[in-house]
Amino acid sequence: MARNKHPEETVNLILSTAFRLFMKKGYEHTSVQDIIDQLGGLSKGAIYHHFKSKEDILVAVTDRMTAESNQMLAVIRDRSDLNGKEKLKAIFKESINRPVQNDIFTVAPDFHNNPRLLFSLLHDTIDHAAPKYILPIIEQGISDGSIETDYPEQLAELILLAANVWLNPMIFDSSEEESHRKFMVFSQMMQGFGLNVVDEEMLARLKELTSIYSIRKTSSR
Amino acid sequence: MARNKHPEETVNLILSTAFRLFMKKGYEHTSVQDIIDQLGGLSKGAIYHHFKSKEDILVAVTDRMTAESNQMLAVIRDRSDLNGKEKLKAIFKESINRPVQNDIFTVAPDFHNNPRLLFSLLHDTIDHAAPKYILPIIEQGISDGSIETDYPEQLAELILLAANVWLNPMIFDSSEEESHRKFMVFSQMMQGFGLNVVDEEMLARLKELTSIYSIRKTSSR
Repeated sequence: MARNKHPEETVNLILSTAFRLFMKKGYEHTSVQDIIDQLGGLSKGAIYHHFKSKEDILVAVTDRMTAESNQMLAVIRDRSDLNGKEKLKAIFKESINRPVQNDIFTVAPDFHNNPRLLFSLLHDTIDHAAPKYILPIIEQGISDGSIETDYPEQLAELILLAANVWLNPMIFDSSEEESHRKFMVFSQMMQGFGLNVVDEEMLARLKELTSIYSIRKTSSR
Repeated sequence: MARNKHPEETVNLILSTAFRLFMKKGYEHTSVQDIIDQLGGLSKGAIYHHFKSKEDILVAVTDRMTAESNQMLAVIRDRSDLNGKEKLKAIFKESINRPVQNDIFTVAPDFHNNPRLLFSLLHDTIDHAAPKYILPIIEQGISDGSIETDYPEQLAELILLAANVWLNPMIFDSSEEESHRKFMVFSQMMQGFGLNVVDEEMLARLKELTSIYSIRKTSSR
């Protein structure tokens, strides 16, 4: 690789390569040398110019994994045409529909070899995404009367834990039917909190996604 | 250590020591040699006589972590004097009350250095404990009319994910007040599913436990 490439491109290439190797071999079994070997001539010095350590690369990979999703959450959170409950509904619809999901499902079959990535995702969900994106929406909902709860922070956490972790087929293997049934229970949980945010269209889209995932899994094993 | 000790005692000592080191230094930063160094003269051969690898020790440590809890779940599951909903209530009461909790809270301050243990616990909860202990109780509840759901497997998973992972202060740092608020949301979630299983006595016990945990944390940092 030419040394004079734009540094952002180099960083992107390092992160894509690292992500692919982490998912394939597992974080613990991927060395910095393994990443370098896939980069067509980039020197060890060049990679250490951008990242202090493998741990540092992991943090950047996790940030990139959630960056696009967080961007979408921020846009909906900041809309001025929806009440709180409508924003929650918009988020679930968007999460299921955004096209990047297809890529993620294809590139990243599972977290089974990757406790470190799962750990990062779990803590990012609870410690970062829930308070930053879901909490302000619930608080708006309390103000505008569309959501009722005395525990907005905790409700935000529980909703996002269920959505990002339990419903995530990269974390828990589920057949198409199982995913559908999990989504029904999720929808009932939301209704139990007075939040009717899941509709038929979303269920149909979920079915489509779980098929893509099942095909990928079958062909890679 | 004498070679002629009962092998079960040796295994127990290896597992306690490994658990303590995994929690303190993290699984990845603990070597088999570190474990041996703490065992007062046990040879490398002796440890490999019982465990093929560090991974093998991890599996046994996780099994031991959940063995006592699983034993309690099995006893309640098999009681003949309670209906399904009463069994769920008994489980939550017992989980909060059983004295071993105090030890766990004291010995195991957190999972922050331990993605591998968290990963094992998460998968054990969803793939093993939910179908084996909670599902039969929900199915009984459906039969006896005390629980209503079309999705018993998924409801079992969601309940146990929330209880074992989200409410677990070893996984997510929570102040006493936060833990109490999480428990209130958990209780509302259960009510949303028609499951009124949390009472005032349980809330009081939870408060007591979170104090023990807070003291331990303050003194160790």
